[in-house]
Amino acid sequence: MGAKGHRIYPFHLGDIDLPTPRVVTEAMNTAIADGKTGYCPGAGIPALREALADDVNMRRGTSYTPENVVVQPGGKPVITKFLQAVMNEGEEVLYPNPGFPIYESQIEYLGGIAKAYRYVPTERGFAIDLDQVESLITPKTRAIIYNDLQNPISAESTDAEREAVAQLAIEHDLWVLSDEAYFEMRYSGESKSIASLPGMAERTVILYTFSKKFAMTGWRLGAAIAPPEIAGVISTMNTNNESCTTHFIQYAGAEALRGDQTEVKAILDTLRGRRDAAFDVLSTIKGVTIAKPESTFYLFPDVTEAMAAKGIEEVNAFSTEALHATGVSFCTRKHFGRPQPGEDRDYVRFAYSGLPEEHIRGGLGLLKSWIES
Amino acid sequence: MGAKGHRIYPFHLGDIDLPTPRVVTEAMNTAIADGKTGYCPGAGIPALREALADDVNMRRGTSYTPENVVVQPGGKPVITKFLQAVMNEGEEVLYPNPGFPIYESQIEYLGGIAKAYRYVPTERGFAIDLDQVESLITPKTRAIIYNDLQNPISAESTDAEREAVAQLAIEHDLWVLSDEAYFEMRYSGESKSIASLPGMAERTVILYTFSKKFAMTGWRLGAAIAPPEIAGVISTMNTNNESCTTHFIQYAGAEALRGDQTEVKAILDTLRGRRDAAFDVLSTIKGVTIAKPESTFYLFPDVTEAMAAKGIEEVNAFSTEALHATGVSFCTRKHFGRPQPGEDRDYVRFAYSGLPEEHIRGGLGLLKSWIES
Repeated sequence: MGAKGHRIYPFHLGDIDLPTPRVVTEAMNTAIADGKTGYCPGAGIPALREALADDVNMRRGTSYTPENVVVQPGGKPVITKFLQAVMNEGEEVLYPNPGFPIYESQIEYLGGIAKAYRYVPTERGFAIDLDQVESLITPKTRAIIYNDLQNPISAESTDAEREAVAQLAIEHDLWVLSDEAYFEMRYSGESKSIASLPGMAERTVILYTFSKKFAMTGWRLGAAIAPPEIAGVISTMNTNNESCTTHFIQYAGAEALRGDQTEVKAILDTLRGRRDAAFDVLSTIKGVTIAKPESTFYLFPDVTEAMAAKGIEEVNAFSTEALHATGVSFCTRKHFGRPQPGEDRDYVRFAYSGLPEEHIRGGLGLLKSWIES
Repeated sequence: MGAKGHRIYPFHLGDIDLPTPRVVTEAMNTAIADGKTGYCPGAGIPALREALADDVNMRRGTSYTPENVVVQPGGKPVITKFLQAVMNEGEEVLYPNPGFPIYESQIEYLGGIAKAYRYVPTERGFAIDLDQVESLITPKTRAIIYNDLQNPISAESTDAEREAVAQLAIEHDLWVLSDEAYFEMRYSGESKSIASLPGMAERTVILYTFSKKFAMTGWRLGAAIAPPEIAGVISTMNTNNESCTTHFIQYAGAEALRGDQTEVKAILDTLRGRRDAAFDVLSTIKGVTIAKPESTFYLFPDVTEAMAAKGIEEVNAFSTEALHATGVSFCTRKHFGRPQPGEDRDYVRFAYSGLPEEHIRGGLGLLKSWIES
């Protein structure tokens, strides 16, 4: 459709169309001029490991050292390496569903058993079904993947929920992958890390990424923050898999953390404006039920009534018809893990990070007209 | 020792101390200015896949299309992904030993059985022991790793040897990983690819890297060139493991291939001078036997007599004593896979890519004095 000249509103992509802050690119070019174009240590350059340990500690109240930090080519590789480090074939890993689809695919690719846990809608968004989580734990359960500030549903744990997940992990001796990709993508309030709770740093691997906060999705820079024995295993994997993460980009990352934050703050302000614009329109559409999340850059409305009004029974068909009628492209719940038994509501995901406010209002206005017509 | 102020001559590192050509860095910055800082397709940007297919075909006489090319964050990831794509647990893979150590470690990490094949010294360097290769093949053998222009020994196949390896692969229905990291690092003659032989493109994955030719080791850019079904599997692995290779660096890679080659040629000329300097000194050391390779940037002398003259029985002890006495640091045969039964000569590896000629002559002159004293 885009090729035919129709305007497409790409709400399906969790990408950011904003430029990376100039201080980051400048630091990269300084590093290249300084000859940082050869190999570097598999675990990362000391300057970045130090900057990350400092930054993570400051924002999370943890006490990591650079030895806990293993630099990665993005946040995503932490998922694979965490599983390779803690899970044996035939062991079970609990993961959020709907959730980032790579959890399910990598658990299964690596020979584990992926056990989905669900969220339930609440007044303020979604909550983890903690009773279900507990019921899923067996002697073969090795780990739980926890994504506070959640993609796709923008769920955010209360302190009590986070503490309950930690308690289950400690009681059942589980490793925890804490996917903190959106830790700093929030518009009010303050993020907390499960790794900061008592007894948790020694069983938690934090997935850290530069992608969102610094508009660096295509740079591929992230890190695993892990207990020493897991950090050592992951560092060995780096050496064997990819040698190291791009050398000069690591200097850019250190400057992103320590340098001027003016443009970094502007990114979050822009996304807040987009969140407001998207929510403003979606929340007025008849048959669409939606909470207003304070974090991530996703909205995950319940469109069950809207689909009924349009006479559409299947959510992917709803997405396709909406795209053809309006040019608005979005994902459905089915993109985020296999649907679970008993799901009787239909959800779709809008990512507002890749469109200017004008197009957000324009595209979602067309969608509203189509749904309500 | 370096920290104490002694001069270290780092012949152990297979890295390059030369700057990346300016056209490459400039193309990268143009791409950043054009907004190429977001995600891109897991298999790579079309412009780079096209440029690589064209370049590989021009130099190898193959007929690949962009669909055969899957961009990677370096050459090394091709080893892991090749093995994950073609090898099941318990299956056997033949690999060169001495050889790049990652072959052995990744075959075993992924649950395969690593079966080493050896080289025998010849007048002009080293030749694969083809009889041994054939004797190692069993019904469980799934693949052979072949590294013409070899690290660490700088072996180079004759046409007959390359054809014999191809013949064995076809007869026994083996997949081939052709590690072509040094394909264009040669000082005379012309490289040939096993993938260009009849019946081979459909069973071969080429490991391509930008690291050596363009002095881009720390940039992490490479590619798998593979038959369509394997390219598809590797592309899926990209999406699941690392999302994509750094977006703007792929534009830099396309320019490296298609842009001005003046500085690229200068890199090879510099390395030729270093090869000559290193060979000049090493070949005059009493008790050191060495061939003059026309490719790679390694020299792999037999130091058996030199060790005997110094009264040192173990090759790693020889390396350590040499380092302490002269500041010359080098790897030994033991860094390149588990030694095989029957090995009765001792070898060490000098990488001359990371030192200026003056330091090559200076360091190796000290080594000569120490060995001969």
